[in-house]
Amino acid sequence: MINVTVWNEHRHEQKNPVVRDVYPEGIHGAIASFLKDDYKVRTATLDEAEHGLTDDVLNETDVLIWWGHIAHDEVSDEVVEKVKKRVWEGMGLIVLHSGHFSKIFKTLMGTSCDLKWREADEKERLWVVDPSHPIVEGVGEYIELDREEMYGEHFDIPAPDQLVFLSWFEGGEVFRSGCTYSRGNGKIFYFRPGHETYPTYHNEEIQRVIKNGVKWAAPTKRSYPVYGNAKPLEEIKPKN
Amino acid sequence: MINVTVWNEHRHEQKNPVVRDVYPEGIHGAIASFLKDDYKVRTATLDEAEHGLTDDVLNETDVLIWWGHIAHDEVSDEVVEKVKKRVWEGMGLIVLHSGHFSKIFKTLMGTSCDLKWREADEKERLWVVDPSHPIVEGVGEYIELDREEMYGEHFDIPAPDQLVFLSWFEGGEVFRSGCTYSRGNGKIFYFRPGHETYPTYHNEEIQRVIKNGVKWAAPTKRSYPVYGNAKPLEEIKPKN
Amino acid sequence: MINVTVWNEHRHEQKNPVVRDVYPEGIHGAIASFLKDDYKVRTATLDEAEHGLTDDVLNETDVLIWWGHIAHDEVSDEVVEKVKKRVWEGMGLIVLHSGHFSKIFKTLMGTSCDLKWREADEKERLWVVDPSHPIVEGVGEYIELDREEMYGEHFDIPAPDQLVFLSWFEGGEVFRSGCTYSRGNGKIFYFRPGHETYPTYHNEEIQRVIKNGVKWAAPTKRSYPVYGNAKPLEEIKPKN
Amino acid sequence: MINVTVWNEHRHEQKNPVVRDVYPEGIHGAIASFLKDDYKVRTATLDEAEHGLTDDVLNETDVLIWWGHIAHDEVSDEVVEKVKKRVWEGMGLIVLHSGHFSKIFKTLMGTSCDLKWREADEKERLWVVDPSHPIVEGVGEYIELDREEMYGEHFDIPAPDQLVFLSWFEGGEVFRSGCTYSRGNGKIFYFRPGHETYPTYHNEEIQRVIKNGVKWAAPTKRSYPVYGNAKPLEEIKPKN
Repeated sequence: MINVTVWNEHRHEQKNPVVRDVYPEGIHGAIASFLKDDYKVRTATLDEAEHGLTDDVLNETDVLIWWGHIAHDEVSDEVVEKVKKRVWEGMGLIVLHSGHFSKIFKTLMGTSCDLKWREADEKERLWVVDPSHPIVEGVGEYIELDREEMYGEHFDIPAPDQLVFLSWFEGGEVFRSGCTYSRGNGKIFYFRPGHETYPTYHNEEIQRVIKNGVKWAAPTKRSYPVYGNAKPLEEIKPKN
Repeated sequence: MINVTVWNEHRHEQKNPVVRDVYPEGIHGAIASFLKDDYKVRTATLDEAEHGLTDDVLNETDVLIWWGHIAHDEVSDEVVEKVKKRVWEGMGLIVLHSGHFSKIFKTLMGTSCDLKWREADEKERLWVVDPSHPIVEGVGEYIELDREEMYGEHFDIPAPDQLVFLSWFEGGEVFRSGCTYSRGNGKIFYFRPGHETYPTYHNEEIQRVIKNGVKWAAPTKRSYPVYGNAKPLEEIKPKN
Repeated sequence: MINVTVWNEHRHEQKNPVVRDVYPEGIHGAIASFLKDDYKVRTATLDEAEHGLTDDVLNETDVLIWWGHIAHDEVSDEVVEKVKKRVWEGMGLIVLHSGHFSKIFKTLMGTSCDLKWREADEKERLWVVDPSHPIVEGVGEYIELDREEMYGEHFDIPAPDQLVFLSWFEGGEVFRSGCTYSRGNGKIFYFRPGHETYPTYHNEEIQRVIKNGVKWAAPTKRSYPVYGNAKPLEEIKPKN
Repeated sequence: MINVTVWNEHRHEQKNPVVRDVYPEGIHGAIASFLKDDYKVRTATLDEAEHGLTDDVLNETDVLIWWGHIAHDEVSDEVVEKVKKRVWEGMGLIVLHSGHFSKIFKTLMGTSCDLKWREADEKERLWVVDPSHPIVEGVGEYIELDREEMYGEHFDIPAPDQLVFLSWFEGGEVFRSGCTYSRGNGKIFYFRPGHETYPTYHNEEIQRVIKNGVKWAAPTKRSYPVYGNAKPLEEIKPKN
């Protein structure tokens, strides 16, 4: 069974009653609750020791889900470095919404990860552009969210390995809202929706995409590549 | 100097006075006129002998631009085969708008190239998603067209080698509207805008993209790869 | 359970005692035998009616495996067209070795699919270049085959969506030997090894890659996209 | 005219007479000398103030070429940060050989950039796998180097946007030796050859690739995307 750790900054829920009303158990709690039938799930938050991401937790995690927004800078560089190493080793990583600006996403992408945004209760439509991708199993032609924060291009990311969703927003913007990458042995899925004041993670289609994403991002079981000085030529040269 | 051939079906202009008013010299004439300062340009149309694409014309063409819509089936398979071979040899190909359903585009893509469409005088915004690409030189963050035909996802194409533009439409759809591919030695650029009843090819920003596209798609000068039975091992084996 | 159909030209085995000795049950029989513990497997061959690929068989097939070499031209265009449609609908396709020149692969790629080759009992090493890909689950850093036919670059294919294996050959050539593509709803995996005179499909690591490939290529379950004339703007326009 | 800055660590040349004999003007001097007919070229080295990469130099540089090996750690983080910002703004970057482990390449890739290596005077063949790419203009099917250091897979990089060269090595390894990426507005080309003890940068075919690379990597002239809070919906909403 796939081991999932849902990481959440967990600040908005404590400060803003609107957010607390939408996510009384926290965003991490909401996400964990719809994953727990299919996966073994734990949660971790910023204010725990080591942000809840101890070596033991990370080593036992197959897929890490990341939600953060207003406290990216409070995440310790040491933890970010450990998470990065784990992705390189094969741990899957699902970065949600405002996690685009998290230290871990930026360091794995090598770009600014900047974008346009607007909070205006806009309608969003996430169109499937790769119908063959396992992440869209069971998903219709598009997912419609009545109200979301707008994220618009240019989204400063490397060209995705696979582009799965494109978003349309009422105000005239578009966004690459479902993007996959590999880094080392690990698979990464960026998925746009999930502003804290909207009930996006209660939407069953959004839940399905995240469930599919976990399955897709789970590690490929194999030994880690060997790097460094290779065997001398004498030992390995084909005999002619 | 790059040799460009602008191919146009040239049927709407003869049947429909609205189109004739917008493009009195034909769509091919309009495109040729804004390219001719930078490139050596000729035109060719469906009703000419061999559709104007004789061996001599094709062999002298560095970049072929293709606009077709209601008469894709009248294009002879023999000419399509010749154009395909020329692309494989290195000729650039720019496929515009309804050319998505041309025989030449479909045979080079290997997919149905189908899509959603609606004629409703909708606003289109083409957002630049790859700001590093030479095709967007001099282009702003987006190009806005007040009225265009809508093309919507799912657009049934292979994942583009490079995705340059994404379109937003008023009615709720998005579209991968600037896509590049390589096939053999040749480069291909699909560019969405250009419904026959709108003055899209008179728009200076659209003209700039097509000009840039020609430059980008021009052949890379080098000898063609050698295929088939390779030299015997005895002749080429590294001496150890 | 995933339904696999293993298609084989099945000509070499009937003409050449060397091949018959290596594959007494035919190449299709050898492949079917190592897949049957994990999947529901049937076989089909060129000389059966409709090449064994009736509408019923194709409609029940989740993943089709294709081996052909000397009789590509004898495969009927009608069957190729049906297989292509099924791939577009979501059926997975695994093309092996000399299948690079099959009608079905060429029509899905849009390129010549040509390459260099040499029969000289050369050593081949297939290096894993995407360690995160599910197709290499359980595979080491490389797979070594003592003797194989050489296939060398330039391999005239579209840039793969994902490049999984690169081959090294004794005589100085390299080859993109594990390539994935999507076409419509269907996933395609080209895997190079398997010259008919060598016991390549008896190699357990090669078997593992093909098994993994079947799992990876199995259809994503979802409804087929809708194409054509979209709803009128009046019906779908966002209410402002 | 394109402004090129050739940056070199310039340590081997001062310590090792073998290297000094091969590159009496330094590796940077050798590279600058074959570029200066086509481009405006300056050089910069580690031991200069700010490593020769002052704000003025960086701001005037269209394409930066990077060679480093034994002193990656001595490059200041501040300069690396500035170079990264300039790439994001549009400056091209060509990373050569052991530059795979430079701070600037690793931070732009988001991976370890690790690989296998062996110094054994091995023959290398760089096969062209994308014949349509402008970087291979005028280059034959492959470039052969009689003696080079071996670099072998797995090369821990993100999947290249475009894979241009694949290397074959005598001892049984392969390597993705010509890879392109975009990061923000900037284009990046990693090109493998150039171990300091071999006369690789005196090879005319290698020189041609680097010349082509500079032309390809030169900035696309356009205004930088705007990020952050977008215009309010009231101002930009399509009037319905």
